[in-house]
Amino acid sequence: MTALFVAFEGIDGCGKSTQARRVADAAGAHFTFEPGDTALGATLRERLLDASQPMTPETEALLMLADRAHHVASVIAPRVERGERVVTDRFLGSTLAYQGSGRGVDLEILERATELAVGSYRPDLTLLIDIPVDVAHSRRTPDRRDRFEAAGIEFHERVRAGFLTLAQRHDNWVVIDGARDRAAVDASVDDALRTIGW
Amino acid sequence: MTALFVAFEGIDGCGKSTQARRVADAAGAHFTFEPGDTALGATLRERLLDASQPMTPETEALLMLADRAHHVASVIAPRVERGERVVTDRFLGSTLAYQGSGRGVDLEILERATELAVGSYRPDLTLLIDIPVDVAHSRRTPDRRDRFEAAGIEFHERVRAGFLTLAQRHDNWVVIDGARDRAAVDASVDDALRTIGW
Repeated sequence: MTALFVAFEGIDGCGKSTQARRVADAAGAHFTFEPGDTALGATLRERLLDASQPMTPETEALLMLADRAHHVASVIAPRVERGERVVTDRFLGSTLAYQGSGRGVDLEILERATELAVGSYRPDLTLLIDIPVDVAHSRRTPDRRDRFEAAGIEFHERVRAGFLTLAQRHDNWVVIDGARDRAAVDASVDDALRTIGW
Repeated sequence: MTALFVAFEGIDGCGKSTQARRVADAAGAHFTFEPGDTALGATLRERLLDASQPMTPETEALLMLADRAHHVASVIAPRVERGERVVTDRFLGSTLAYQGSGRGVDLEILERATELAVGSYRPDLTLLIDIPVDVAHSRRTPDRRDRFEAAGIEFHERVRAGFLTLAQRHDNWVVIDGARDRAAVDASVDDALRTIGW
């Protein structure tokens, strides 16, 4: 078994968490997520999602990057170095799409700050589960107490467009149409994973 | 009264907190500190100082930058914009000296990430209270539960040297010899502040 690191990205309600868990379970891989899958991360996640506590987009981005730096150093990289497979629900793309395209933080400044968080550490493959915003919202009513879910349709349209731009710009991203029935989405995800020898 | 923003920097035990409070009290200015002088910051400070929870220097740096971004946006900038004077105990120099010179995070990467936190926002004057590490430690026994105080003499020597290099490189930094008696330090600090019309 080859060590591999795979990320699922997309807007809330696109089905990426379901896919990430399914893929990890089927392969005996380690499932993890951002923000929050460490003790420090859980503290940061609580602050990040709490819509009642205002913070600037830049603060949001730096907390996401801190969570990611800790997540890579303490969860992802040690497992991949031991030869394991790791599947994460969200990674770098989410910061660029949510804080960059969604909130309007300058993408170039954001990408430069990323260097401090993860250097050149990247997934072997990123699967973007793409879905129209209204379909995502019809699947799951947005939770208004969640800073991101509370942000409105236009915000999520910008985030979706940001994800699609990232997929166009990077060879190791694949776009999966997540609006189809579940079996079709499963099959496309599995096909994409086969291209990296999963 | 002109709006002014002044930062005090230096290693633990150098006397900067005493000076920052004295100066703020005498001028009716707002005293604040990093990390931690916001609700979010208090959470981050607790995590940052807890020596029992390991984290990488990069994670440390990103949490410090997130704290600073939130601190500037919610405490410092609004007051300065209203015409007030603000005195902070630690600012940008501490991240460059502690996480950069002290922990070994690449200074150029650190400075680029700083852009995301505070853009080009800088104090009108930074006062570095410089003191030999052994004098600082003789004044106050380091608390081993504090991640930074527990880091050892060599670490604090690198931090001190990092601060002195920053002071050499920036015109709006002044080095105050903090090893002298209190009245002499007070007088030097007051002289330095007069140069910016404090």
